[in-house]
Amino acid sequence: MKVVITGGTGMLGKKLARKLLEQGTLSPDGKPAKIEKLVLMDVATAPYVPVDPRVEVVTGQVYDADLIKRLITPDTGAVFHFAAVVSAGAEKDFDLGYRVNLDGTRNVLEACRALGTKPRVVFTSSIAVYGGDLPERLSDDQPLTPQTSYGVQKAMGEMLVADYTRKGFVDGRSLRLPTIVVRPGKPNLAASTFASSIIREPLAGQEAICPVRPDNWMPLLSPRKTVEAFVRAHDLPASAWGWNRSLTLPSLDATVQDMADALRRVAGEEAYRRIKWQPDPMIQKIVDGWPRKLASTRAKAMGFTTDPSIDALIEAHIEDDIRPNTR
Amino acid sequence: MKVVITGGTGMLGKKLARKLLEQGTLSPDGKPAKIEKLVLMDVATAPYVPVDPRVEVVTGQVYDADLIKRLITPDTGAVFHFAAVVSAGAEKDFDLGYRVNLDGTRNVLEACRALGTKPRVVFTSSIAVYGGDLPERLSDDQPLTPQTSYGVQKAMGEMLVADYTRKGFVDGRSLRLPTIVVRPGKPNLAASTFASSIIREPLAGQEAICPVRPDNWMPLLSPRKTVEAFVRAHDLPASAWGWNRSLTLPSLDATVQDMADALRRVAGEEAYRRIKWQPDPMIQKIVDGWPRKLASTRAKAMGFTTDPSIDALIEAHIEDDIRPNTR
Repeated sequence: MKVVITGGTGMLGKKLARKLLEQGTLSPDGKPAKIEKLVLMDVATAPYVPVDPRVEVVTGQVYDADLIKRLITPDTGAVFHFAAVVSAGAEKDFDLGYRVNLDGTRNVLEACRALGTKPRVVFTSSIAVYGGDLPERLSDDQPLTPQTSYGVQKAMGEMLVADYTRKGFVDGRSLRLPTIVVRPGKPNLAASTFASSIIREPLAGQEAICPVRPDNWMPLLSPRKTVEAFVRAHDLPASAWGWNRSLTLPSLDATVQDMADALRRVAGEEAYRRIKWQPDPMIQKIVDGWPRKLASTRAKAMGFTTDPSIDALIEAHIEDDIRPNTR
Repeated sequence: MKVVITGGTGMLGKKLARKLLEQGTLSPDGKPAKIEKLVLMDVATAPYVPVDPRVEVVTGQVYDADLIKRLITPDTGAVFHFAAVVSAGAEKDFDLGYRVNLDGTRNVLEACRALGTKPRVVFTSSIAVYGGDLPERLSDDQPLTPQTSYGVQKAMGEMLVADYTRKGFVDGRSLRLPTIVVRPGKPNLAASTFASSIIREPLAGQEAICPVRPDNWMPLLSPRKTVEAFVRAHDLPASAWGWNRSLTLPSLDATVQDMADALRRVAGEEAYRRIKWQPDPMIQKIVDGWPRKLASTRAKAMGFTTDPSIDALIEAHIEDDIRPNTR
């Protein structure tokens, strides 16, 4: 079968692609199906895109309905939909956010519906669907009250996935991602970028600024576990999901101090000292509006797992992103 | 100022128009502003549209972005957005539902945003945003889990209204309507149509079929109270809403037997006997998935009221729809 990954040259898209190429199969309902073709669609190509005869990289915009229709051909069995304008981007460019995050998602779902084969669609949502006055730990029936355009667009995407699924047009599954740590590469404009920087930069011998309080809680998940979750979300039978197609992934809930302590254990005192604690009230205010701890009861019952410890999460980054630095 | 009502020749649109023409003003933040012009936009004109020099009827589709832009001119201070494909219609014609209920709402919000004057927008949502396994009485923080395309589209509309408001593009307010009873006119294709029929038809000397159990709870609100709520929702200052721009209107929670008993009190034994109890398992199954009782705590605290009794709700129908039968 053919698999399409939108946002396929992004951080998670590439990691999922690598995993799928290694596996060689996806196993819907536990039955292995060979991946003949893997399309990575994104706005641009990127370094370290896997080179493999099965891979095709397609450059374009997810809001280009015709392109998406051409990509999602009748042999497409699965679509992993990562393509998105991120939080800060959607806040800055309101129109682009809706074009990519809402219209783009509709294009993907419409192209899948047109096939008439009910392909599986795994949609990337985010805990940005939560906001406002939040309890200390979020349960699975926490109402969606997004406070950013990005969060609104992700919540709308989840509802579309549920509706297209209910109508029998696709077999959809939405995953709400916690804070992904450690993201390889460079800091970006996201307010959460420090959560990766305070691990990644010290490991690389550089200083990193932590703009929030040491006792600030964050729900963490490694890219490795996130990619595993996408495969599991795809493979589980429809009966495991029922009518509720949205899931908050389990996280490792830790304070920023816990993260720094783990860094010290894994990489030593010198690395730890490279974290510079410089409170930034503006960033602290943004982060204060985010979920702190996630119960994720349903996800755990469905077999999704989190990283065993922050130390393990840091080791995963070293194994996956630092050692194989040709990737 | 100019006021635009989309769905303006529909049942609620016309009743709101009549109310606004009688009042002559809207009072945002308690300060009366004269209504110079009232545009009733709808797919077609209809009987009993108020005749008044201030009224202009415009025929067209809410998914026609150019038309909506032409309607919502810089002198527009308020838009009441009723236009929608109803529940059964959106279920039957998936594409039309999204075009009207989602794209149409985006058109209205975009046209308002283009003005740069932050007009007030009152959006018609529905308790169809709730579904699945529901508690006996819904609190204000019940998660939105729509189980119909209509419910999904209304939930998405609420989120858009909230996001456009947060960005300062409009000053939006969304009202979730309970079952509106008594609707004047003829039965329609909605599964809820019996709730009005079992009052309206017996009053007119005709038989009506009740397809659900006598002990079936329904949250009711009269068209009269609904129209009052739209005016109040518009007039309240932004500070009364805060960031949460969605509100479940208060309802009179009654069983179908309560409704029949009230009909007997108001119109006598003969009228009561015109209700024919013919259980329809298919309709009962649909109705079983609906909210039964609404707490509406926040709406009550904000001064929204429900009908004092089912008898009063029936009297309101007689006063508003039967006696002035030239309307």
